[in-house]
Amino acid sequence: MSDIEAVRQILARYVRAADRRDGAAMASLFVENGIIEISHNDGGHLVPIGRLEGRDQIAQAVTGMMRPHPERGWSHHATFDHIIEIDGDVAEVDAQFIVYNTAGAVKPSAGWPAGAFGAQGTVTPVEAGYYRPTLRRINYHWRIQRHRIDLDLPMAAPGA
Amino acid sequence: MSDIEAVRQILARYVRAADRRDGAAMASLFVENGIIEISHNDGGHLVPIGRLEGRDQIAQAVTGMMRPHPERGWSHHATFDHIIEIDGDVAEVDAQFIVYNTAGAVKPSAGWPAGAFGAQGTVTPVEAGYYRPTLRRINYHWRIQRHRIDLDLPMAAPGA
Amino acid sequence: MSDIEAVRQILARYVRAADRRDGAAMASLFVENGIIEISHNDGGHLVPIGRLEGRDQIAQAVTGMMRPHPERGWSHHATFDHIIEIDGDVAEVDAQFIVYNTAGAVKPSAGWPAGAFGAQGTVTPVEAGYYRPTLRRINYHWRIQRHRIDLDLPMAAPGA
Repeated sequence: MSDIEAVRQILARYVRAADRRDGAAMASLFVENGIIEISHNDGGHLVPIGRLEGRDQIAQAVTGMMRPHPERGWSHHATFDHIIEIDGDVAEVDAQFIVYNTAGAVKPSAGWPAGAFGAQGTVTPVEAGYYRPTLRRINYHWRIQRHRIDLDLPMAAPGA
Repeated sequence: MSDIEAVRQILARYVRAADRRDGAAMASLFVENGIIEISHNDGGHLVPIGRLEGRDQIAQAVTGMMRPHPERGWSHHATFDHIIEIDGDVAEVDAQFIVYNTAGAVKPSAGWPAGAFGAQGTVTPVEAGYYRPTLRRINYHWRIQRHRIDLDLPMAAPGA
Repeated sequence: MSDIEAVRQILARYVRAADRRDGAAMASLFVENGIIEISHNDGGHLVPIGRLEGRDQIAQAVTGMMRPHPERGWSHHATFDHIIEIDGDVAEVDAQFIVYNTAGAVKPSAGWPAGAFGAQGTVTPVEAGYYRPTLRRINYHWRIQRHRIDLDLPMAAPGA
């Protein structure tokens, strides 16, 4: 597998871990002291929102701070249009992302109504921005060293 | 072209065939006795929805069972974040997908209203899930042997 | 970097330039006398909408004719499922695209309401279609020679 493809697939595994709320899988994609920096891009000005340092904090945030999926719900963190520049053992990535929430409809006890056809429920894009991680190759494996998440939208958090 | 790229482009041709409702183009991406298995992922439990076996059944389903596009309508089956593992002549793929329907607005006989600007119509995501195909390389060509479609949302079908 | 990857990343830079309304960055991706042809795919019949020729016209259109982002707004031109065929120094690309607008909510002076959680604002898909560029390799660099944009939806423009 080419280095560019290997780096791209780290991002593919990153979004799987996010959607599964799987902190251990997420942490394994980072170097031991890896960093996540989340900012809101407020008209070109990056406003820091949060910072995580080290695999333990990262695992805990994914497992404990991301909202669990509601019943019949799931999410897709999706990435597009990767710009990947590799210099030796360092890769710089700039990728667009959008997060979709999906929510399945409840099947009525009498069955789907006459005329219902196809998927029953909603697919809603709720977040967007850029992932800008830096990865390092260590013993032939690419790992995220520092992950910048630049969000288009402001974030509300308890107490903020 | 690398094997990973060749496999990825099979998926790109798969979504083109789906959006064109082109059964012959779709069937040509599968091995002769290829299989499609469609399931609804109901909170981690895969509920079988349908199964197709062989190129003829696959071609017929695409041409005859997918709803035709309405007037001024089109769809985009889009895939993201491919995880592709190749071992010899076998490739295992895990890709996210979302289906969008697009519907063009009708241009009023008096022309677009004053102030109208840009695209006139709607782009609506309606389905999402994971494509999990297994491909085989036969005479240098990658073909889908078994295609798992795991849908986020339940499906309604006539009589179901 | 493989040729296919290099071509794919030209498209990734194209969408960045579009979203930044950066005419100079956009023009630099084209050959000097590059062409953009925009059409509306009206039920299989391509209706020409606009044509740009040369780097100056292209730069001017991106900087001057695309609507500026509103306050707290941004866009993502996103591409998917690239089919890339390379023959010597010529590459033919067929990619799906969707354009999303994002709009951040205004934070109330009293702070986000109790119970607000996560991204505050909207992510709306507004355009879709296919990018069908032809690229040429000149002195080891891929550049767009002719870029076809086939839109699903009709476009309204002042006076049209």
